[in-house]
Amino acid sequence: MSIINYQLKKTSIIEMNRLSVEEFHEAEKMPLIVVLDDVRSLYNVGSVFRTSDAFRVEAIDLCGITATPDEVRDEDGTLVRDCTLKASQEIHKTALGAEESVAWRYYKTAAEAVAALKADGYTVLAVEQCHGSTMLNDFKPAFGDKKKYAVVLGNEVKGVHQEVVDMCDGCLEIPQYGTKHSLNVSVTAGIVIWHFASSNL
Amino acid sequence: MSIINYQLKKTSIIEMNRLSVEEFHEAEKMPLIVVLDDVRSLYNVGSVFRTSDAFRVEAIDLCGITATPDEVRDEDGTLVRDCTLKASQEIHKTALGAEESVAWRYYKTAAEAVAALKADGYTVLAVEQCHGSTMLNDFKPAFGDKKKYAVVLGNEVKGVHQEVVDMCDGCLEIPQYGTKHSLNVSVTAGIVIWHFASSNL
Repeated sequence: MSIINYQLKKTSIIEMNRLSVEEFHEAEKMPLIVVLDDVRSLYNVGSVFRTSDAFRVEAIDLCGITATPDEVRDEDGTLVRDCTLKASQEIHKTALGAEESVAWRYYKTAAEAVAALKADGYTVLAVEQCHGSTMLNDFKPAFGDKKKYAVVLGNEVKGVHQEVVDMCDGCLEIPQYGTKHSLNVSVTAGIVIWHFASSNL
Repeated sequence: MSIINYQLKKTSIIEMNRLSVEEFHEAEKMPLIVVLDDVRSLYNVGSVFRTSDAFRVEAIDLCGITATPDEVRDEDGTLVRDCTLKASQEIHKTALGAEESVAWRYYKTAAEAVAALKADGYTVLAVEQCHGSTMLNDFKPAFGDKKKYAVVLGNEVKGVHQEVVDMCDGCLEIPQYGTKHSLNVSVTAGIVIWHFASSNL
């Protein structure tokens, strides 16, 4: 590092050129969708929104018990997914408003989301520790070939459902070397989204 | 991805070859120390422990108001850093016990930690959005040249203190493209630690 210290002045908020929510909606996105399969913690949901905002993820598919930032109704107005005020506030608190910028959809099961994504031409990868996994560091997204991807992250305890893994085109695994082998869901999302984003920088 | 689905069976806990705490203490570590400068949230502290366990980070330096997994006393037995039962339990809950495997130290200020690290030959990099930052994707650690590193992560609102930034050898910045430009501390730690770890895989 040849950088001289006095240059390292922290950037002010004004200098950061942050997008407005409207500009975000119009901006080009990374062709990556994040699927949350039965994620229990509101904190993790909010954090995934915040990270997805930072790297302009295309959308988040919230599935099963995963909380949504708002209630979801079908075309007939029937309530599909409830959302308590507390859940909405908790997600907002962690997402810092990124639930307004990043597009999201709700599916009753991750299997439904994955089926829809595959029909729409996405390469769908479960983020799991599997036999036959591809280690994340060995994986290079082929964005240049116009490929679009979805990654599935699972429940804090049970991970991605085996039947959802079975539907996927592959598994990405973050190699781990410690005593736990269980990264936090929002940290896992951060690492995987960064891996996709930085491969394109 | 040419992987065939039926191969993607999730790995059982027994198959993961997780280290015991004793094996972790003996195992070779990545020459990277994570410095937390006034991190307020117990959740973030616990999460950084968990991620540091996964990638065998050498140690975590907890500074200022950052909570410690236990109370800290100096050689005379004088209490240097208090730790309530609640704080200890909260860190444990998020760290899932990684506070037992990963080495940690307490410093009254991050400036003291950085001074000690520099005296000990570490290249110290603040993780911040600065004028003159090096973008994380442009940075390659020189572990091969026996270099050892420390990264400083700051408070959830205020970031790393400017006087601490001034002491550092450089700034690493995670480029961000959204409406917020403020990743969660534990997600930031995850991305940075993964960047160091994967550069060596």
